[in-house]
Amino acid sequence: MATLGLIEYEESTGVVREVYDDIRATRNTDYINNFWKALAHDPATLQRTWAGVKQIMTPGALDVLTKELLYVAISATNGCGYCIASHTVSARKAGMTDEMFGELMAVVGMANETNRLAAGYQVEIDERFLTK
Amino acid sequence: MATLGLIEYEESTGVVREVYDDIRATRNTDYINNFWKALAHDPATLQRTWAGVKQIMTPGALDVLTKELLYVAISATNGCGYCIASHTVSARKAGMTDEMFGELMAVVGMANETNRLAAGYQVEIDERFLTK
Amino acid sequence: MATLGLIEYEESTGVVREVYDDIRATRNTDYINNFWKALAHDPATLQRTWAGVKQIMTPGALDVLTKELLYVAISATNGCGYCIASHTVSARKAGMTDEMFGELMAVVGMANETNRLAAGYQVEIDERFLTK
Amino acid sequence: MATLGLIEYEESTGVVREVYDDIRATRNTDYINNFWKALAHDPATLQRTWAGVKQIMTPGALDVLTKELLYVAISATNGCGYCIASHTVSARKAGMTDEMFGELMAVVGMANETNRLAAGYQVEIDERFLTK
Amino acid sequence: MATLGLIEYEESTGVVREVYDDIRATRNTDYINNFWKALAHDPATLQRTWAGVKQIMTPGALDVLTKELLYVAISATNGCGYCIASHTVSARKAGMTDEMFGELMAVVGMANETNRLAAGYQVEIDERFLTK
Amino acid sequence: MATLGLIEYEESTGVVREVYDDIRATRNTDYINNFWKALAHDPATLQRTWAGVKQIMTPGALDVLTKELLYVAISATNGCGYCIASHTVSARKAGMTDEMFGELMAVVGMANETNRLAAGYQVEIDERFLTK
Repeated sequence: MATLGLIEYEESTGVVREVYDDIRATRNTDYINNFWKALAHDPATLQRTWAGVKQIMTPGALDVLTKELLYVAISATNGCGYCIASHTVSARKAGMTDEMFGELMAVVGMANETNRLAAGYQVEIDERFLTK
Repeated sequence: MATLGLIEYEESTGVVREVYDDIRATRNTDYINNFWKALAHDPATLQRTWAGVKQIMTPGALDVLTKELLYVAISATNGCGYCIASHTVSARKAGMTDEMFGELMAVVGMANETNRLAAGYQVEIDERFLTK
Repeated sequence: MATLGLIEYEESTGVVREVYDDIRATRNTDYINNFWKALAHDPATLQRTWAGVKQIMTPGALDVLTKELLYVAISATNGCGYCIASHTVSARKAGMTDEMFGELMAVVGMANETNRLAAGYQVEIDERFLTK
Repeated sequence: MATLGLIEYEESTGVVREVYDDIRATRNTDYINNFWKALAHDPATLQRTWAGVKQIMTPGALDVLTKELLYVAISATNGCGYCIASHTVSARKAGMTDEMFGELMAVVGMANETNRLAAGYQVEIDERFLTK
Repeated sequence: MATLGLIEYEESTGVVREVYDDIRATRNTDYINNFWKALAHDPATLQRTWAGVKQIMTPGALDVLTKELLYVAISATNGCGYCIASHTVSARKAGMTDEMFGELMAVVGMANETNRLAAGYQVEIDERFLTK
Repeated sequence: MATLGLIEYEESTGVVREVYDDIRATRNTDYINNFWKALAHDPATLQRTWAGVKQIMTPGALDVLTKELLYVAISATNGCGYCIASHTVSARKAGMTDEMFGELMAVVGMANETNRLAAGYQVEIDERFLTK
């Protein structure tokens, strides 16, 4: 149950409590997931990471669904069980259908395949793909 | 210039020529990039991989831009120089703006950070994120 | 319980018994952890790996705590559950405090983030960082 | 030379100029390395990443040398050429000797080896290493 | 039990049923493993992936045992628990002995070690290893 | 040209010279590749790594060709440019044909694809694949 255990809302104080309150308000739910309760042992990291996630995972040039799909794709590529589970749920909340999930996984599989083929065949970057 | 060298269009025959022609027709360009010219040394892999990419990288429940963004995200996570370069170009062709690229990279960075934090803190998956 | 099962001390003979005895003597404990009991199915690998770990994880230009912190950082980056769990315990024995663990994880998160940003942005190595 | 090119100090304005000035002041040098000049295309990411690095890479429970060693270890594990090159230089500035570098690499190699052995042998986590 | 659950043989229809029947016939067993039952939610991916595996994992220039050993090596390197477990079983069926498994893991460990040493030491590729 | 430069045979002394002589004798060539010349800055790592490679990469339950194929597969999965280049050459010397290389890469691609699909779909390990 996490290296240092989980800090529950009721136990939280100071910066941790502030972040917890912001998570609740931003997500419009009382639920705080284990990731944040584990990070809470290091208030500086909790605060910085939450601020980063909050800043990034909002609609901008890319919408939230696209960002959650990206998160799932990266987590699957890294084999992070926790992140796959939690962001698959977030992606669904943001509108991911079963069909979208299937296509997402298809891209994840194909990209991981061709990434290794390009490396293994030692393919040089085409002149026209080089940034100048 | 690739482990076995590159097979140019002019040298290509049989299955390789067919795939090359299909790449040209599908992409509406005479240009065939190095990746395919390297794979051409193994016609079975060339054909299967191209068929897979063609099937997957078309509009479906997800549009082509979203799929190209996913491709770049995975390639950056895997550190595949060739794939980052080529799919960044593809993503641009599919409509990726500089602002979108910035947000894409922000998600890539954040997801890679939190993936490792979740692993390092040994965070257990929340009951509610478990698939049943 | 490991692919080939675990070989307990009582069952061990020959080279395996010698390595087990050396682990016990070196670590000043009767406990032998599962990793070694699993490797014991291949005495050559058991012996070579233990000799390597014993040689490396001793005080030298770097102290043992620093080396254990490095081990945890790498294990978290690779997502190796076994190694994160066991080396977090070893790091604590070597003196890692909760505060050190927090800072360790902060570096792990940040390095994984910037590693992927550098790759995704295709940043060229500065002239002055090149080794000659 | 980076996907979107590099933004030089002279061209920088607004938030980017502020971050550049802070990098110069904090590091006590006029030199700004390519990583930041590439990120500058996305001022939000530049600012957030620099703030994170500045917060983390300062002396705390762990000293700066230890943090730089961790950075190199992670970058080598991820195969990030840019980050290996730049943080090896930073680690030297923080006091890393050739002998320390050798021991650092020895741990990097050994940890990557045993991480995969633990996975491949499917070793279960010892009861006593489980966090509660 | 997989993100979208598992589709059992009895529930399967259309393309999924066809693939299931082909898996059974090809492998000469009624058993269909969870991987395929999970992929079945996306019939296109199920069909394409099975066709690829069937094409690749047959005797050719390399025999099936060698291919299964490669599969285990890659899965251990990626830390994919499911794939390590299932392909270790497949490798045994193809003739892998305990001794072969030991040597396989020894190579996996050593290659992962030297891969990171080469990266960390920033070793340049020898002229004679360059493909032309 | 490697972080600490390369130590040439002519400059080598003591343990380094002994290892160099053993490399030359074992491989029946005067050529020593850059990897060893870079490691030579840390004689303990040079000696231990060479002893490990020499012990592992000899014919046993698996022949040398199979071991070199595994080395290339792992190096491609890790994206290690140096190791892909050098072990592709070693594999050729051990008998790898172009056709074998093609099949090797096909397995590398497919395994990397299905590794991520298994993770992304959160597929549970089948009862019968569990080790007891």
